[in-house]
Order: sequence, then structure tokens, then C-alpha cells
Amino acid sequence: MMLVNGAPAESIPVTDRGLAYGDGVFRTLRAVDGCPLHWPRHYAKLHSDCAALGIPCPSASLLLSEVQSAAAGHPHASVKIMVTRGSGLRGYVPPQPCVPTRIVIAEARTLPSQNAAAGVAVHLCSLRLAHQPALAGIKHLNRLENVLARAEWNDSTIAEGLLLDQDGLAIGGTMSNLFIVAHGALATPILSRCGVAGVTRARVIDIAASSGVACRVEHLPLQRVLDADELFIVNSVIGLWPVSRMATHSWRVGNTTAQIRQALEDDDAALA
Amino acid sequence: MMLVNGAPAESIPVTDRGLAYGDGVFRTLRAVDGCPLHWPRHYAKLHSDCAALGIPCPSASLLLSEVQSAAAGHPHASVKIMVTRGSGLRGYVPPQPCVPTRIVIAEARTLPSQNAAAGVAVHLCSLRLAHQPALAGIKHLNRLENVLARAEWNDSTIAEGLLLDQDGLAIGGTMSNLFIVAHGALATPILSRCGVAGVTRARVIDIAASSGVACRVEHLPLQRVLDADELFIVNSVIGLWPVSRMATHSWRVGNTTAQIRQALEDDDAALA
Repeated sequence: MMLVNGAPAESIPVTDRGLAYGDGVFRTLRAVDGCPLHWPRHYAKLHSDCAALGIPCPSASLLLSEVQSAAAGHPHASVKIMVTRGSGLRGYVPPQPCVPTRIVIAEARTLPSQNAAAGVAVHLCSLRLAHQPALAGIKHLNRLENVLARAEWNDSTIAEGLLLDQDGLAIGGTMSNLFIVAHGALATPILSRCGVAGVTRARVIDIAASSGVACRVEHLPLQRVLDADELFIVNSVIGLWPVSRMATHSWRVGNTTAQIRQALEDDDAALA
Repeated sequence: MMLVNGAPAESIPVTDRGLAYGDGVFRTLRAVDGCPLHWPRHYAKLHSDCAALGIPCPSASLLLSEVQSAAAGHPHASVKIMVTRGSGLRGYVPPQPCVPTRIVIAEARTLPSQNAAAGVAVHLCSLRLAHQPALAGIKHLNRLENVLARAEWNDSTIAEGLLLDQDGLAIGGTMSNLFIVAHGALATPILSRCGVAGVTRARVIDIAASSGVACRVEHLPLQRVLDADELFIVNSVIGLWPVSRMATHSWRVGNTTAQIRQALEDDDAALA
């Protein structure tokens, strides 16, 4: 089901700045029996991303009720929320007043395959992410880098692409955040110059802290990734997938990865 | 008037990838009595930009007929053409087959003010453009940098913002290309790492060549801009505006600028 500004609709005005400029932000998340998982975190991130672009964020209660309506009737749903700066035809100057557009799309979630247990193969993308501190970390609608990176492979056995930045540092997947495990400790890339700082990444950092597993947010040159004992990717829809292979490199699906995955799943189950 | 895939419409599907990812390209141009000016150049640029993103470009004849329909009845129109990768809900992977969306919007052109003769004031933007060679030069729909830059000033006496890249090189305006004049010669920034290589920029380069004015495409540190004898910005809707002021710096509206502007206008008049 799709809602635009709270009403069932399948279209938006041609003049929406989300289309014209990618002038908006989005979230993807899971809902169980019509309830979005980790809603406070998702709303906080949406609010923070809107603020970074100067878009007034719709209220938590309004969006929550729209997510619940759109996801109703699905035991398991994938939900996408987009908030744009609304309509405005003439040029880049932000419209005054700004009336944001809310779009909520929910559909039955296809439950995951063996990926979570067996791990996935990953492609090392040629495209290098640009450094733009003004947009780094934000899940905004300017995603051509991700589109170009995802178009680099057409092999259904490869589930994700690993993106490096223009200095050769690992940043994340095209649709996921990255963690490495080395000597029993986690590390995940700094996202102050590019990348998207996802909600499940934040949850993993918190889970590590509360379970006594070291987790550093730091620069991760590709070699650190290749040398890691374990590797995994996360996002709010897939959960956690171990990475088992990239070109000629392979990683085991190890105990630390399994421990974090179990903690994420326990946390989801407690909410659902 | 607005046409979506050739039919009068004011909306597009929520699932369009132009909205989801900014996955498309656009053009803005002028039409006189329903005829787009410099159509072969605009279509060639649209085709080249589509090719760079792997989007099948609609045919020239189809788009031309849609521009003519949309602009009909306006002696002077501003036209915007958007071509997106079309609909596709699930993730970054490009839809196969790809059925692009064509959007053509025409409206009466508000004829320019004194800007072309008197020159305009420009704001020096704080936002620095990121280096992304895979997208540089393309007029794509990922324009958040331009939106953030344009939001830096709210003074109606300032007509444009000057954007530097992350090395401090001048790249262009938020909606225009930049030329400097020094010692009677033109120079305009290299756009291989960021910026949009516009059609009017290409026309100015050609006009310079055919009228014996030197024009170099080169790196332009901010100081070269500040030290220039004359400065002007161009785009296909505004034509050419001299820049007369930026903060405490001022430039004269000089002879070379006037000569280029006259040549652009003669060229337009010959077509219209």
C-alpha cells in the first residue's frame, strides 16, 4: 500500500523537488503485524536527516500512524518512508513556506534466504564514493553513486557491492553498512565524508557496547577488510548478513558475527 | 503545460526512480513560438548524459514533438525536460527492461530584467563541490549540493552563488557556468571532477573560437577569478549575465563580455 500525505495514492506531482533535485530523505525498515521495528531510532534518524537539509520533519505520531496504516494486514512488511521538500517549480531556492511531501510504501516482506546463515558473496565496486561532508551520513535521495555501483555486476550469486571512497577506504555496501571482526573486536568505517550512517549500524555499535565486545569507528583501508577474520553487512530490512567471499578472498562465518546477529534478532523478537 | 510520456499529466508514479534515487537527467532551455532554441545541442547533451548513466535516451524526434506541444502558444517559453530510468521499486539494481520516463514542462518565460546589461551580484558559497568523476559534467537529478548552496543566501539582490570545489578551484554557479576574462582572453573551469558542462558554455567556447578570442578550459583557483578583468555566467535560460560584484570585489561589465553576449543573442535571433 502507498500513502502520499496520508492518503492512498500512487503518484506525486511532477513539480516535487524530490524528483527535480533528489531534495529529500528516506528510510527503509521492517514492520511486524503493522508495527515498525525500532521506530524511535528510525524517526530520530529521519528527523536528524531532515534537519541537516533544512526540511521540516513531519511529526513522529503522524508518520507512525501512516506507517501502521500502510503496513496493516501484512504479518511481515518492508516499509519505505520518503520525505521531500515538497513542490516548487522554479529553481534551487527553497520554497517558502516549505510543505514537505510524505510518502509511505509498505509491501509484504519476502523473508530472507540462506544469506543470514551461510553468508553472501560481495563485489568490489570500481566506483569510488566522493567526499562531501555536507551530505555524509544522511540517507538522502541523491543516490546515483549507489545506482552506478549496483550496475557494475549482474550476477545473481553476488548479493552486495563493497564501496571504497576516493582515498581507498572501505565505506560500506551499496545498501548496507559494513563491520569487520579482527581479534574478536569490531570496527566500522567513519562516515563523516561519505556513506550513510544507518540505524542497524547504530544498533550494532550499542549491542557491542552492552555485551562487552570492543567496537571502534575508524578509517578502514581495504587491506584491513581483506585481513579481517570475519566480515558482515547490516541494514534494517535484511538484518545481518555475513560476507563469505569477495573475488578470491574468503572469510569464515565466525562466532562474533553469529553473536551480534543473535543479539539483533533477539532484540527484534522482543519488540515484535 | 506538462507532458509525462507524451500525455498531459501533472504527476508521476511514486515508484519512479527519478524520485527514489535522482536516477535521471534533465535540461532547461528556451523556446520561441514553440520551437526550442539550439535543439540539436540540447538533444546531443541529453543523449550523452543518458548514455553516461546507462539510460536509453528517447528519440530526438519524439522529444522535439513533445517540447513543441508543451511550448505551443507561448511566444517565449522556458522548457524543462527530465528523463528518468522509469519505475522500479526494489533496490538499486537497474530495472530490466528499462522504460524511461519522459517529462516535459513548458511555461511562459519571464523576460529578464536588467541583469544582462547591468550585471549581477554573486554570493561566494561555503559549500564545496565534491569530486566525483563518474558524474562530473552530467546534468543529472542529484542536485542536493546546488540546493544547499542556494539556501546559503536569502537576499534578492544576489542573483547567483559561486561554487568552489574541495581544492578551492572555481567550478561555476549553482545554476550556471562561469567564464572569466583576463587580458582579452576567456577561461572557463575544467569540469572533469564536478560541475555541469552546459550547452551555453559549449556555445561560448565555439563563439570564441570562431571570432578569434582565445578561450582556455583550465583550473581556475579563486584568486584567478578575483583578479579577472571581467566575469560572466551563462545558462540556456538566462543567456549571459555579467558578474559585477561578489562581497567586496567588483568587476566592470567589459567589452569582451559584451561581445560574447551580442554573439549569443545574434545566434538566438537567427534561429528564432
